[in-house]
Amino acid sequence: MLEGITSEAFILGCSAIGAGLAMIAGIGPGIGQGHAAGRGAEAVGRQPEAQDDIVRTMLLGQAVAETTGIYGLVIAIILLFVRPLLTAYLNL
Amino acid sequence: MLEGITSEAFILGCSAIGAGLAMIAGIGPGIGQGHAAGRGAEAVGRQPEAQDDIVRTMLLGQAVAETTGIYGLVIAIILLFVRPLLTAYLNL
Amino acid sequence: MLEGITSEAFILGCSAIGAGLAMIAGIGPGIGQGHAAGRGAEAVGRQPEAQDDIVRTMLLGQAVAETTGIYGLVIAIILLFVRPLLTAYLNL
Repeated sequence: MLEGITSEAFILGCSAIGAGLAMIAGIGPGIGQGHAAGRGAEAVGRQPEAQDDIVRTMLLGQAVAETTGIYGLVIAIILLFVRPLLTAYLNL
Repeated sequence: MLEGITSEAFILGCSAIGAGLAMIAGIGPGIGQGHAAGRGAEAVGRQPEAQDDIVRTMLLGQAVAETTGIYGLVIAIILLFVRPLLTAYLNL
Repeated sequence: MLEGITSEAFILGCSAIGAGLAMIAGIGPGIGQGHAAGRGAEAVGRQPEAQDDIVRTMLLGQAVAETTGIYGLVIAIILLFVRPLLTAYLNL
């Protein structure tokens, strides 16, 4: 414990910050999917007989809108559990 | 206490910042679900007889919009309680 | 106190930043629920006889929109009062 911050610790600490930053991408899907939910609920109220088609379309569109949030999650998981940057440093 | 900041403390401190950053993802679901709530309330006012279908569609869509907020929460909990980066450092 | 910033102080200081960052999530529910309130008021003005149904739907949707703000609050409280990172450091 006499060494101060090592290079490995610096890389790992910055990885924690990077993982948190990556999750901010989730803002977008949250806004977009909520918008789709509102329009879907509105459409169901107007044509209740088309409910199945409306909900299926809403969910399909929301699934596409989810993708960037998943990308952020994948990068965060890589930073926390795969740690390619530390591996790269150790292999120098 | 004579050594200044240790490597372990640096990783843990950065994990606190990362956990806070990950929660920012919650902005999105908040905006989106609120939008869905407004459209749902409006639709119920226009077609009160379709209230059940409208509310069900609204809640389903809002549940999808919640996901990225949950991802952020999961990453924050991992950073605070699982601490994979500290484990990785201690195993070096 | 001759050593400058200690490891424990660094973790606690970063926890303060993390707690503040987590609260930024509150932007979302604030915008979204306000939007729902506006649409709800509008709908009540248009169909006053459906007021109960409109308000009930609005409040249900707003409750869902509140969740990510609550998540941020919980993480902030954990950082401030439970302090799992400091505990982890002291248990090293």
